Amino acid sequence: MIRLHGFAASNYFNMAKLALLEKGVEFEVVNVHGSQDPDFLAKSPRGKVPVLETAQGFLNETNVILEYIEETQGGKALLPSDPYERGVVRALTKEIELYIELPARSCFMEVFFGGKVDQAIKDKARVELLAGVATLARHGRFAPYVAGNEMTVADIFLLYSFDLASTVAQKLFDIDLKAELPQAAALLELLAQNPNVQKVAADREAEMAAFMAAIRAARK
Amino acid sequence: MIRLHGFAASNYFNMAKLALLEKGVEFEVVNVHGSQDPDFLAKSPRGKVPVLETAQGFLNETNVILEYIEETQGGKALLPSDPYERGVVRALTKEIELYIELPARSCFMEVFFGGKVDQAIKDKARVELLAGVATLARHGRFAPYVAGNEMTVADIFLLYSFDLASTVAQKLFDIDLKAELPQAAALLELLAQNPNVQKVAADREAEMAAFMAAIRAARK
Repeated sequence: MIRLHGFAASNYFNMAKLALLEKGVEFEVVNVHGSQDPDFLAKSPRGKVPVLETAQGFLNETNVILEYIEETQGGKALLPSDPYERGVVRALTKEIELYIELPARSCFMEVFFGGKVDQAIKDKARVELLAGVATLARHGRFAPYVAGNEMTVADIFLLYSFDLASTVAQKLFDIDLKAELPQAAALLELLAQNPNVQKVAADREAEMAAFMAAIRAARK
Repeated sequence: MIRLHGFAASNYFNMAKLALLEKGVEFEVVNVHGSQDPDFLAKSPRGKVPVLETAQGFLNETNVILEYIEETQGGKALLPSDPYERGVVRALTKEIELYIELPARSCFMEVFFGGKVDQAIKDKARVELLAGVATLARHGRFAPYVAGNEMTVADIFLLYSFDLASTVAQKLFDIDLKAELPQAAALLELLAQNPNVQKVAADREAEMAAFMAAIRAARK
């Protein structure tokens, strides 16, 4: 059986978990945090979660895991069958990761974990984040899903990136990303009604306090 | 016919161009620089090159373009047919982009274009770059290609990322990435013997002086 390694407070772990739940794939969770321990690096070369354990070995990087699940498991399709439309979904997914999630992430230490982030890095994140949201406003179809009338991996990336990015933008830059892109805010409300999304959120909620305490302890 | 929009001094453009040449796909080049002009943003939502023009519309993001070419065009395979092995190649490709190319890129303005990059951004790039090279040392097979005995999209990403990253590491951090990862240096030498790689390099060389002059003029 497929085993998903990671932890419920990780947004990338939750992307892979939601994809498995949506497709109705049976899987086990192996609870582990990312680390630079040699044992973990042998499974996940950059030390990050999630990692998917398959009969053939481990696979890292969330979008790679989602592609593998799509290609090997049955259930609801999360990528279109037409190659061009699949390309559009992949492009939207990557835009969300590179131009929204990653700039926001560069500020997580200050916004969520009580540390400080250098002003130059915050300035860069602000510019990139606004450009990223403008990119998604331009390219997203929001009908009502990011790529059209079906839920795809792009929605999964949006769901676990946009709220975090909105918090970063609000706290550090006094910018309301949900007002910048109301279609995304409406889509998040729609997705919040999905029972699998609710299950992932409940598991996350149950683990979040312990995770935050562990991060703060590690910083001391 | 497929049209590839971009310019010969762009490393990402050259990734897509080499893939098309290696597969023997007929294509036209449309010479254009990335920009935030509305006309160009309608083709490439983040304003970057390359963009692929297909009969169905435009596709952006280099790895997305490479997947589309692989799925729709004949010729030499640049991704394995087994889904797990394809996942490994995709993971390696993404590691090269996110953990080597992107940190190096955050310093390009200072290393290549005569500008200044804030110390905090350089410090971050140094840490990320070293972690990225260690990731590739751990995960890459280099037998002799990144993912094994066949050339894949991971080699194409390495070819157009590692030299630039090595220059950044040498100039800013006095670190020799080719000594850190001699297998990558050996692979670059092997790839340099490939006639299509030589053609891309010659086109790049012919355009580079004009590109550098344009960048420097734009900064004034």
